Amino acid sequence: MHRVVVVGAGFAGLSAARALIGKQVEVTIVDQRNFHTFQPLLYEVATAGLESGDVAYPIRVIFGKAANVAFRMAAVTGVDWDRREVLLAGSEPLPFDSLIIASGATAKFFGIPGASEHSFPLYTLTDARRLRDHILRRLEDVDAHPEGAAARGALTFVVVGGGPTGVEVAGALAELLDVAVKHDGFRFDRAAGRIVLVDALDRLLTPFRESAAEYAAGTLAARGIELRLGRMVKSVQADSVALDDGSSIPTRTVVWAGGVTVEHTVAGEIGVATGANGRLVVGPDLTVEGHDDVYAVGDAAAVLWGSGEDADKLCPQVAQVAIQSGAHAAAQILARLDGKERRPFRYKDKGIMATIGRRAAITQFRSGRVVRGTLGWLAWLALHLVYLVGFRNKIVVFINWSWRYLSWGSGPRIIVSEESVPGIDTGKGDELSS
Amino acid sequence: MHRVVVVGAGFAGLSAARALIGKQVEVTIVDQRNFHTFQPLLYEVATAGLESGDVAYPIRVIFGKAANVAFRMAAVTGVDWDRREVLLAGSEPLPFDSLIIASGATAKFFGIPGASEHSFPLYTLTDARRLRDHILRRLEDVDAHPEGAAARGALTFVVVGGGPTGVEVAGALAELLDVAVKHDGFRFDRAAGRIVLVDALDRLLTPFRESAAEYAAGTLAARGIELRLGRMVKSVQADSVALDDGSSIPTRTVVWAGGVTVEHTVAGEIGVATGANGRLVVGPDLTVEGHDDVYAVGDAAAVLWGSGEDADKLCPQVAQVAIQSGAHAAAQILARLDGKERRPFRYKDKGIMATIGRRAAITQFRSGRVVRGTLGWLAWLALHLVYLVGFRNKIVVFINWSWRYLSWGSGPRIIVSEESVPGIDTGKGDELSS
Repeated sequence: MHRVVVVGAGFAGLSAARALIGKQVEVTIVDQRNFHTFQPLLYEVATAGLESGDVAYPIRVIFGKAANVAFRMAAVTGVDWDRREVLLAGSEPLPFDSLIIASGATAKFFGIPGASEHSFPLYTLTDARRLRDHILRRLEDVDAHPEGAAARGALTFVVVGGGPTGVEVAGALAELLDVAVKHDGFRFDRAAGRIVLVDALDRLLTPFRESAAEYAAGTLAARGIELRLGRMVKSVQADSVALDDGSSIPTRTVVWAGGVTVEHTVAGEIGVATGANGRLVVGPDLTVEGHDDVYAVGDAAAVLWGSGEDADKLCPQVAQVAIQSGAHAAAQILARLDGKERRPFRYKDKGIMATIGRRAAITQFRSGRVVRGTLGWLAWLALHLVYLVGFRNKIVVFINWSWRYLSWGSGPRIIVSEESVPGIDTGKGDELSS
Repeated sequence: MHRVVVVGAGFAGLSAARALIGKQVEVTIVDQRNFHTFQPLLYEVATAGLESGDVAYPIRVIFGKAANVAFRMAAVTGVDWDRREVLLAGSEPLPFDSLIIASGATAKFFGIPGASEHSFPLYTLTDARRLRDHILRRLEDVDAHPEGAAARGALTFVVVGGGPTGVEVAGALAELLDVAVKHDGFRFDRAAGRIVLVDALDRLLTPFRESAAEYAAGTLAARGIELRLGRMVKSVQADSVALDDGSSIPTRTVVWAGGVTVEHTVAGEIGVATGANGRLVVGPDLTVEGHDDVYAVGDAAAVLWGSGEDADKLCPQVAQVAIQSGAHAAAQILARLDGKERRPFRYKDKGIMATIGRRAAITQFRSGRVVRGTLGWLAWLALHLVYLVGFRNKIVVFINWSWRYLSWGSGPRIIVSEESVPGIDTGKGDELSS
């Protein structure tokens, strides 16, 4: 039987493998994690609004009933093009007849000094949990050592990047600080808590219309978030971040939502042509140059829009593109097996969304129409619940959200990392942990 | 105002601090974790039935509205008896007028060679998460390397200890293996999965009546669990466990439910008298010898039954004793402040419970009456839901359980530990992770 290997179980890989369930192919989906991550809600995990399990779904559960789909938990180290095998860390290689590369991307730091060492990206569940633990530890530090806390930046949270992730994190951080003071008995002055959002561009949410960006900026400002637009980060230190206007912000927490790259991922190491940010160059049918049976999809690939006036533009690295391109690659494999022609990919833009916190979100439809405020938030909520994989997760997320919306209830504000001694954030560089 | 420091936020510490809410005292509760752990359900986290957040509750949420209770996240390193201060790692000491030691216990390995290095205790949330990740990784290893998996012990799970925890883990492990094969597409033969329960005594569940123990043994055996009663563990290696009859069981997973000790905890380091297993010796009013304003409660203390024919017997280290002794210590502090006499502690035995899996549990009432089977399980379920702190947790746990009971749904069978490359369990000692 025709063997298909799918590398990566993000939106793109999952969508591809799902489209192959019950077909005349033998599928193996490989991922170094045994779960799919619902990335659009990672910012909620990072700000203690949701638990890890709410956004993580076991891959084996998704394909448990699919006789022709197997899962292999392993890190992919490369591809042997001659033997047509995917190489795995510490495991036998996986032979393939067709290959779908859906290995995603990682945070891009633009070579900014200190950024990779001292800032917190937000692309994986581990990233989100690390950030959550760090934020909660900073609050505990402030509570234990209130003297000079604001001055040493322990209560300052800098978010780099004004795209949807940056806006969402900034909004949720403001809510977390509110809750910490209102519900959790932290004894700091809420007004001393600063959230600063930095972006090199002059406006937020570039893919959105100007009016949506202005609404977001206004809403964030109303919630006390400082916007530093048109400012570039020059360097990041453990206790501050320097901007290109010569200013420096004392902070212990820099969230990096500044962009992603495919460089330094396995996709960049397999010797096929790459474009901007390391994205794999693909033809209209999503095959990579020189490898007729190898497809690249999702964030890892430089997928072209394929239709309309934007036909030659690159698709954004978002869930919708991943889902559609993954399914398209799967369909082309089946078409070939049936002796049919492959078709070019055409992106169907279903609109874009971003949330700024409770009761405030923006939905921009393909037509350009923008819905915002409570209605935008409800639309955002409905869509995310529908897309969350699995019945149980949906219900749990729904209850968590409802409860949190009403009262902020218990929220999963627990610190789970191994360090049992809290970091001592005295500004003297003698931090014991984290 | 009279300053009370409570060391530890387990059942005992929480119960003590709660009894002091709104009273004329200033309470600080110290714990190295920022959450309370509902220990009776840790075995569910370890076997992927519940998520971490279902059994962890943020301490600050519990006391968020209590103006006279503060929380300090820190590890206690000792007590300065002259200055009457609790010493903290990396933080200023906490002065006290009254002190309640509720620092719990840790796994006791009885000096058995290899036990502490190669087995998995189940006393903290970290323990439970470590064990869960380990078990799930073993199953992934078997799936990736099926050759000789059973022979090298990759599918053998040994549980040491036939008390409630051991019985509960063994039962839940059997269910997890069923689910792995039935729902998760693992391609091993379920019959190759072995669960072995070892105990030095001739019977299970010592505090229960003989008839209850026999029911448990029969139920476990019917579920395919091998019982090795009257057998002591001689040593534990990375790939096997040796028993005192000269036999050796190849296994990659030894769960340690063999008992607890107060030795090597902070309670053992503060220089007060200790008894069996390092438990702090306390008087009838729960004060420790030589320190009139210092109380020890819960697992850390050698609490006497105090009434009835068992008056001079030691209370078991269970949640009920912790809850009652914690509240008693708090009440004695208030009594003294009011100029009243302190009263001796009297344990109110409300019965004991153990579950063996879905639809099978044992409840033994104080009268000695035993309810078992489905009815026992429902009683167990109701009690545990009632005791779980916090509304949200209860609902989420209830849904998780209901859903799992009906279908095993998604279960939180995700591996969250940092190692991204699965352990390669080839039996050659070249494991890459865990």
